[in-house]
Amino acid sequence: MTVHNSHPEDEAVLCAEAGALRAFSIDVLSRAGADAATAEAATRAMMHGSCLGVDSHGIRLLAHYVAALKGGRVNPAPTLRLVREVGATAVLDAGHGHGALAAYTAMDHAVRLAGSHGTGAVAIRNSSHFGPAGAYALAAAERGLIGLATCNSDSFVSLHDGAERFHGTNPLAVAAPVAGGEPWLLDMATSAITYNRVQLHRSLGRPLDPGVAAAEDGSATTDPERASMLAPLGGPYGYKGAGLAGLSEILSAVLTGMRISPEILPMAGPDLSSPREMGAFVLAIDPGAFLPAEVFLAGMARYLAALRQSRPLPGARVLAPGDREWAERDRRMRDGIPIDPATAAAFVQLARTYGLTPPIPVSSVAEKQP
Amino acid sequence: MTVHNSHPEDEAVLCAEAGALRAFSIDVLSRAGADAATAEAATRAMMHGSCLGVDSHGIRLLAHYVAALKGGRVNPAPTLRLVREVGATAVLDAGHGHGALAAYTAMDHAVRLAGSHGTGAVAIRNSSHFGPAGAYALAAAERGLIGLATCNSDSFVSLHDGAERFHGTNPLAVAAPVAGGEPWLLDMATSAITYNRVQLHRSLGRPLDPGVAAAEDGSATTDPERASMLAPLGGPYGYKGAGLAGLSEILSAVLTGMRISPEILPMAGPDLSSPREMGAFVLAIDPGAFLPAEVFLAGMARYLAALRQSRPLPGARVLAPGDREWAERDRRMRDGIPIDPATAAAFVQLARTYGLTPPIPVSSVAEKQP
Repeated sequence: MTVHNSHPEDEAVLCAEAGALRAFSIDVLSRAGADAATAEAATRAMMHGSCLGVDSHGIRLLAHYVAALKGGRVNPAPTLRLVREVGATAVLDAGHGHGALAAYTAMDHAVRLAGSHGTGAVAIRNSSHFGPAGAYALAAAERGLIGLATCNSDSFVSLHDGAERFHGTNPLAVAAPVAGGEPWLLDMATSAITYNRVQLHRSLGRPLDPGVAAAEDGSATTDPERASMLAPLGGPYGYKGAGLAGLSEILSAVLTGMRISPEILPMAGPDLSSPREMGAFVLAIDPGAFLPAEVFLAGMARYLAALRQSRPLPGARVLAPGDREWAERDRRMRDGIPIDPATAAAFVQLARTYGLTPPIPVSSVAEKQP
Repeated sequence: MTVHNSHPEDEAVLCAEAGALRAFSIDVLSRAGADAATAEAATRAMMHGSCLGVDSHGIRLLAHYVAALKGGRVNPAPTLRLVREVGATAVLDAGHGHGALAAYTAMDHAVRLAGSHGTGAVAIRNSSHFGPAGAYALAAAERGLIGLATCNSDSFVSLHDGAERFHGTNPLAVAAPVAGGEPWLLDMATSAITYNRVQLHRSLGRPLDPGVAAAEDGSATTDPERASMLAPLGGPYGYKGAGLAGLSEILSAVLTGMRISPEILPMAGPDLSSPREMGAFVLAIDPGAFLPAEVFLAGMARYLAALRQSRPLPGARVLAPGDREWAERDRRMRDGIPIDPATAAAFVQLARTYGLTPPIPVSSVAEKQP
């Protein structure tokens, strides 16, 4: 559907114009029927992806979300209800609303619970595609807490020694606050690679690394054209990635009573009218419950300084989780957010449908890298 | 120090005699000065390793623990104190005691906290080597809760793009209850492989998989003789494994105010007298806080049935986390616990020192596999 953002034909929206991109998204979602909270949350999550370089979960999803709202899969004006609250835990029923609204709301509750209990854990029911897991973990870290977010998703990853799709890419995201800097931010699929990478290697005509993808019959392949499912993280030790995907499954689906990955309707359709009944899970940990906040922050600083000073391989650089994303954010704020041609075309169509002016892409800059 | 248990010269203690092995361990630790709680907890953790096939953290550690107790590194009779308790969280000061005593005690508190708050999170201070992380996660699952345990350790794993040891093998363990069966149990190092595997490949003269280990200068190697550090999980995507190791670091060391991995004294010495000031972290989640326990258990059963029925690669079998370990436990209960020659020799020495009779190994059976 989309071309990877490193594609030379990509165009970019200058980040001085990121506000216009954001406004366009909110306008489109609103005119597609989304209530204000839904339009705001879905846009915030997509802008997280587009600003930090996680384009698979960026603004390219706008047209898909419109289709899901119009089709009835996603409730455009859901009532989110806390159906249960026990101590440091809660269950949020998202009313088949947008997954970003559900996840941001759940993390708000988790942060509130952590304020009185030291931690807050919120299980999300009746949700939908939630996009970039890192966005919700980050929402806790921005308030000084450690945040964790996970969500299972439709089958796309083989099991270790398995020959068919089973788990989704089931991301795990964790963020931790850093004094005077951007948060430590780990946002990882539990698959060996993302489907985006398969698409990138297809467009570059470059083989995949061994052990990261499989053909339709489950046999390992390095040919991106033959790759039809992803392998779990770990290569020959893929039971680790599959186990981490299982952790996501247990927290997102089993603890919420929602669908396990093989039961979730495919994201791309054709059915865009039935709610997907997805679960998700967020956790917030207040470091201040364990030790003085400044001691925690000093520890983070000491850890990150040691890590960044660790000896790199020749020509390489050692990075902490998030370093690459924050640098990409800075670059995009300067040079623009790349918009792939399919997304740019969808914007024109959406603008026509809703009587809006599409954000004007600027010619893409050359140094965009995957 | 030890030979991998698949070594043909291994001997075994029949599991009808596992009680004798356990009793020997408790007697040795007690005579080395450990109080009853320490001897019991350290033995329980080692027997977890020896029964489930995690021999690196099994009974082979007995002589090491005796040396640490005698040397003064580990306090043989510590006072464990809850120095802080806020809502669903607590901080346990382990008084430089044995890490297994600290971790089991912390998980007891976490389970108690989860009883009233839905979750319980306990940060452990002033601890030491805690052995098999899975043992403590399992302690929660045996009581119907989801358990998580992690601990950082002395530097042995390079960073992604790094050329020196930085993180420890920093395990993450999670366990979840299963009705009428053994718990789902994920116990994984965040390194690509364990050092045990390097030793195994050395003894077999077999090359390592690419991307799992590095030579002293940090360059990747498949030669087990040259391997002097491990790579983070993920091969070319090792930032994932390094990020997961970082999660362990943040929870175990930063949230506890303890040492980060590069600051921890090497396990093997030469200094066996200074406390290692290690932290660790455990979390217990009561599914019953989120939904009826029977719904959770039905969900686990549905998930595991789907997983085990997933199509395998030709000649392979799809397993859930823990399946291999529980099968190994059954095999060892039947055929015996393998005792490597170095450990058997250490037992004879310990028995002589403390006036005890060593457990009698039986000849090892042939089918032991790594």
